[in-house]
Amino acid sequence: MDERLKELILSVKPSDKKAMEEAAKRQDSLAKPPGSLGLLEEISIRLAGMTGSVKNRFEKKALLVFASDNGVVEEGVSSAPQSVTYSQTINIAHGKTGAGVLAAYFGCDVTVCDVGVNADINDPKVLNRKIAYGTKNIAKGPAMSEEEAVKAVLIGAELAMESKADIIGVGEMGIGNTTTSTAVIAIIANVDAGIICGRGGGVNDESFERKKEIIRKVSYSYDHDRKDVIKILSHAGGFDIAAMCGAFIGAAASGRPVVIDGIISAAAALCAVTLCGNVKDYIIAGHRSAEPAYMTAVNILGLEPFLSLGMRLGEGSGCPIAFQVIDAACAVMNNMATFNEAGINDDYLEEIRELDKWED
Amino acid sequence: MDERLKELILSVKPSDKKAMEEAAKRQDSLAKPPGSLGLLEEISIRLAGMTGSVKNRFEKKALLVFASDNGVVEEGVSSAPQSVTYSQTINIAHGKTGAGVLAAYFGCDVTVCDVGVNADINDPKVLNRKIAYGTKNIAKGPAMSEEEAVKAVLIGAELAMESKADIIGVGEMGIGNTTTSTAVIAIIANVDAGIICGRGGGVNDESFERKKEIIRKVSYSYDHDRKDVIKILSHAGGFDIAAMCGAFIGAAASGRPVVIDGIISAAAALCAVTLCGNVKDYIIAGHRSAEPAYMTAVNILGLEPFLSLGMRLGEGSGCPIAFQVIDAACAVMNNMATFNEAGINDDYLEEIRELDKWED
Repeated sequence: MDERLKELILSVKPSDKKAMEEAAKRQDSLAKPPGSLGLLEEISIRLAGMTGSVKNRFEKKALLVFASDNGVVEEGVSSAPQSVTYSQTINIAHGKTGAGVLAAYFGCDVTVCDVGVNADINDPKVLNRKIAYGTKNIAKGPAMSEEEAVKAVLIGAELAMESKADIIGVGEMGIGNTTTSTAVIAIIANVDAGIICGRGGGVNDESFERKKEIIRKVSYSYDHDRKDVIKILSHAGGFDIAAMCGAFIGAAASGRPVVIDGIISAAAALCAVTLCGNVKDYIIAGHRSAEPAYMTAVNILGLEPFLSLGMRLGEGSGCPIAFQVIDAACAVMNNMATFNEAGINDDYLEEIRELDKWED
Repeated sequence: MDERLKELILSVKPSDKKAMEEAAKRQDSLAKPPGSLGLLEEISIRLAGMTGSVKNRFEKKALLVFASDNGVVEEGVSSAPQSVTYSQTINIAHGKTGAGVLAAYFGCDVTVCDVGVNADINDPKVLNRKIAYGTKNIAKGPAMSEEEAVKAVLIGAELAMESKADIIGVGEMGIGNTTTSTAVIAIIANVDAGIICGRGGGVNDESFERKKEIIRKVSYSYDHDRKDVIKILSHAGGFDIAAMCGAFIGAAASGRPVVIDGIISAAAALCAVTLCGNVKDYIIAGHRSAEPAYMTAVNILGLEPFLSLGMRLGEGSGCPIAFQVIDAACAVMNNMATFNEAGINDDYLEEIRELDKWED
């Protein structure tokens, strides 16, 4: 394995179990029936494990959006022409898209990085880390070399580690990338692509059948180790997925929570955790994608997405809203009084305290 | 029917279809594939119908929390003693509970109203609209008189109409109220309570069986019109559900969106819409409760909850987070550029515009 990649992987520490225990203890001492705030409690405890502190505030929020093109679009798996990648990459960087508006509203920075768009982008707002002008067609052979896959992972990791944000969301732009993501998930999960393939941004029945067939062909033609993420990315992935995989690892290496947006983001998170198990401790699933492969990936990761808004825009657009829920989890931990602090001076205090639940 | 109630019901206008059409048109002109922001789009269009304006901002947010006791607790349907209603009513009013912390964090006012707590609350922060010291035991007879049910509905409506908030969330505190809510939903939906009964705040297996049996008995003993909400409330409801029903109607009457929190809130919303169909246009479902009866109610209302946090605290605690999602829907409508406004000066604009979707 590449030395820099190995070093990166080794730099990710497991979450701080002691901080998590303290956080869990504090949650149970807060003036509410234990567990009654559900995932907000779980998230706050996991956050303590990520940062090492029981109380957390993630004031600086950032979206990292990776853009690239996919050779497989020549198979007609997408309803949109490849050129949309180029124009939307620029539009996202200028805050003109859905993700930009939501990010701005909730005070979240957006960094757009070109890792493989099939056109020169001469725009100061788009970071140029182009590896190639799109990947090759995975229906006919590998998407990229293993060296390119490693390069993309390291680019994503570097970007995440250099980010000044306290919490990071990982998004993308790339026509054809639900095809590549589904293939990658099918290979790692070892499931038939026909079952987990969705319509992505929307294709007609004929294209949908073609998409399924191509993903099946690509995933069944992979006959190596299903843990060899670099090989899988080179076989079936995209520069975006690879760089996003790196971003998950980079965020984890720097002890910061990192949020999955949609299916491409979930595929990248699955790659990151397959490469480096400790990364799992830092990942939070936000919006529940309608793509079946998304749930396959998220289930393997043991995560529970909490927003069901039927969004299918990509770009990391679900993350700014997910950040609000994470803030809510922090608010409960930081601002709720314990039974003792609350100064609830009545005879019922002890009764409440002993109850597991009181709502019904 | 009571004259004031009739007047209230007649004052609720259906949503403004013209504003909704304009809103839908604007959504489709925004620089994204139509429909790609899912529920955020739908919500923004519904909001236009409620207020009559395409662009909305709900700066002043409020939680209305109705507290009352339920005679049915003497049947052992709840794990918590009735006295918890009293103490928690005060604690909520003083911002010491989960709902208070979340409301404060997201800048949302909280009004707590005693409509039937089984103790005198001498606290200036709790509004006193007490109808009685708890309801009677529904396992043995009606919870309240029809006059009391009407009174509670009118109290809730008045509170909502007097609120200065732009958007309202409806919460509660009342030991035993998942039992009454489930009974009310079972009657209106005409389904077997055994199927839709959940464990509420949590009861052991034995109490759960008893709870189911009591709700079945109560709902099967109702042999009147399943649209006669006042009779249903008096037969199986609580002062909290009745007042909350009024709050939904009052919010709708004053053209404001109103958010369902959990199962009790959903039962009240179902009552409100059964009393007055137009109210439906103003209701938004926030957090998805794990109580089966919640989904029964919400399905009848045709609503789609979008937050799955496994919360079961009640108190309206899910609403402050739901308000953030609603704000996100407004941000998209208010701040996103249309294709024309965006000034996307490239050749791909027309291609994007013609696409239904582009993400895959």
